[in-house]
Amino acid sequence: MIHPTAIVSPLAQIGVNVRVGPFSIIHDNVVIGADTVIESHCEIGHPSALAGGRALVIGRGSLIRSHSVFYEGSTFGERLTTGHRVTVRELTTAGKNLQIGTLGDIQGHCEIGDYVRTHSNVHIGHESKIHNFVWIFPYVVLTNDPHPPSDTCVGCEIHDHAVIATMSIILPGVQVGEHSLVAAHSSVSRDVEAHTVVGGSPARFLCPTDKIKLKDGSGRSAYPWTTHFSRGYPEDVVKEWLSRIPASGQE
Amino acid sequence: MIHPTAIVSPLAQIGVNVRVGPFSIIHDNVVIGADTVIESHCEIGHPSALAGGRALVIGRGSLIRSHSVFYEGSTFGERLTTGHRVTVRELTTAGKNLQIGTLGDIQGHCEIGDYVRTHSNVHIGHESKIHNFVWIFPYVVLTNDPHPPSDTCVGCEIHDHAVIATMSIILPGVQVGEHSLVAAHSSVSRDVEAHTVVGGSPARFLCPTDKIKLKDGSGRSAYPWTTHFSRGYPEDVVKEWLSRIPASGQE
Amino acid sequence: MIHPTAIVSPLAQIGVNVRVGPFSIIHDNVVIGADTVIESHCEIGHPSALAGGRALVIGRGSLIRSHSVFYEGSTFGERLTTGHRVTVRELTTAGKNLQIGTLGDIQGHCEIGDYVRTHSNVHIGHESKIHNFVWIFPYVVLTNDPHPPSDTCVGCEIHDHAVIATMSIILPGVQVGEHSLVAAHSSVSRDVEAHTVVGGSPARFLCPTDKIKLKDGSGRSAYPWTTHFSRGYPEDVVKEWLSRIPASGQE
Repeated sequence: MIHPTAIVSPLAQIGVNVRVGPFSIIHDNVVIGADTVIESHCEIGHPSALAGGRALVIGRGSLIRSHSVFYEGSTFGERLTTGHRVTVRELTTAGKNLQIGTLGDIQGHCEIGDYVRTHSNVHIGHESKIHNFVWIFPYVVLTNDPHPPSDTCVGCEIHDHAVIATMSIILPGVQVGEHSLVAAHSSVSRDVEAHTVVGGSPARFLCPTDKIKLKDGSGRSAYPWTTHFSRGYPEDVVKEWLSRIPASGQE
Repeated sequence: MIHPTAIVSPLAQIGVNVRVGPFSIIHDNVVIGADTVIESHCEIGHPSALAGGRALVIGRGSLIRSHSVFYEGSTFGERLTTGHRVTVRELTTAGKNLQIGTLGDIQGHCEIGDYVRTHSNVHIGHESKIHNFVWIFPYVVLTNDPHPPSDTCVGCEIHDHAVIATMSIILPGVQVGEHSLVAAHSSVSRDVEAHTVVGGSPARFLCPTDKIKLKDGSGRSAYPWTTHFSRGYPEDVVKEWLSRIPASGQE
Repeated sequence: MIHPTAIVSPLAQIGVNVRVGPFSIIHDNVVIGADTVIESHCEIGHPSALAGGRALVIGRGSLIRSHSVFYEGSTFGERLTTGHRVTVRELTTAGKNLQIGTLGDIQGHCEIGDYVRTHSNVHIGHESKIHNFVWIFPYVVLTNDPHPPSDTCVGCEIHDHAVIATMSIILPGVQVGEHSLVAAHSSVSRDVEAHTVVGGSPARFLCPTDKIKLKDGSGRSAYPWTTHFSRGYPEDVVKEWLSRIPASGQE
């Protein structure tokens, strides 16, 4: 299951049924869970003094696509899935079922919950906090320096089920509330209330999320998105979401 | 012409005079036209259940630069040229002389015409339609989900000779008209009329394209760009463009 | 120090104590200074007719991280440091201690001074000029074509100590003055005066830079940033900066 051209350290702890593709490198300080696939041209467990000796831990059932680079010192729950050419630096901790899109760049020292999905080319700055079931769309940047360059680092915090649409940036220290929506091409400098839509640069309150209707002609609200979208989530999670919908369609 | 470190499936159909660079991988279900160059560290024909068994077809005379990844199931006409680290997913069809810039990301299920040029770091969402002679500049994103996340996918459509300038996004389902210009750093939520300039976030009508003058002191209009720009196009195409210019400088 | 899987041309001029990682390629027309590290999966000195036969020169003490591609014909001073997957085209000249972030894309024919730092995913268009101690943050694009596509190329010029924040674009030919600050998510179409903040799309004057205070409760101005930030600069440089601070906190 290890391709003969791959370079795998004998010190790496590799679970059963792990595949490693051609021209990939697995360094010493790595723990890879069972049933994981590392595709070609990856570098896993890049040594770093900043990791303080902590291992890179990849949960079981993960898929890391080609040309990705992970440093020592981060921990991922089971079923991590990445696109191609992902970069993950030191000391990030993530829950289960994280998806990182192609070209994603996680700068390190982040805390990420369960079932978070970032699309292509998302940049997560140091010290970001992302809770559960969050969606982040292409070319979004989470920033952390309020007056760059400086030694101040104030990460953003993105709460459960929030959605950040394409090419938006979240400025340092901003709280993005539960089930909120940041419209595309926005620059968010103030906290976003739960269940609201903000947009623009600088972003302003636009409406409650339930004013946005599905384009399927049903007349139903598009948010909370958990009322109509379930692709990729386990049955028990979706069942719990649906049990929480009141008659009005809002949580 | 196949580098000894490259891994090339004996099932791949490879034309005459094809070169494959070091550390590149060519999978089974691939047809590569004659006189094509695949540079180093590429993965060509990445297997995918989503391709429905269709091959990846690369037309003759193509150049795929290093670290690029193409999935099964897409078809490209002759003289495809890519930058480095391009990603192309399943079931896209493109005409001849497509140029994809470095870090370009084509998500699949797209239809692309002839002589389309995308610059660095352009993201083309699923179900996008791009006609002929279109230009897309760096960090542009074509989106497709009107209320993300959802199961609705409504691609954009970019018509002949349209130009989308740097760091703009086109929202789902938008039609960008022939010979129109989307100014840099715009977010386009409504259809763009042919031969007009739009800009801003949200983008608004700014002027007819022929109001924009060349900076060369000639006093001539910069648009239609086909009146003054011909680099990289074949003579017969340029001749046909020039034959269509009326006295006013507009088509 | 050369990994056995690396492919290194015998014609390349490689200094003492240079390391080359697995699966990297060093072409013929390359000069690499002593004590430099080239990580894995790189391609260094990609041949190009556009380089006019000039070598790629990398100064001593440099670090080029994995999956990077450098073409022939550019010259870098000592202690160049790059992130992963950097692309540098032909005929750029840079001073010492340049840092290029992950996914950085330098298009060629640029002039870059000393101690310039670009963060992740910065795109520097052809013919850009960047002076000394400049900071460029993620997803910034420096453009050069005033009416794309055309044969006109007018690079931007970024002066000493200027700071361009995340996801901003600088339009062709714009001068960004010394110690100025371009706020995040801006589109800059007019020259930026020294020691001023501009922001928005199109960017407008917001305030003098010294109106922005540090978030550390000290009440001090955050700009000029050289008054409080010194990480990564040599002592003599920092000493000279601090000697120039007048009582008002401005240079």
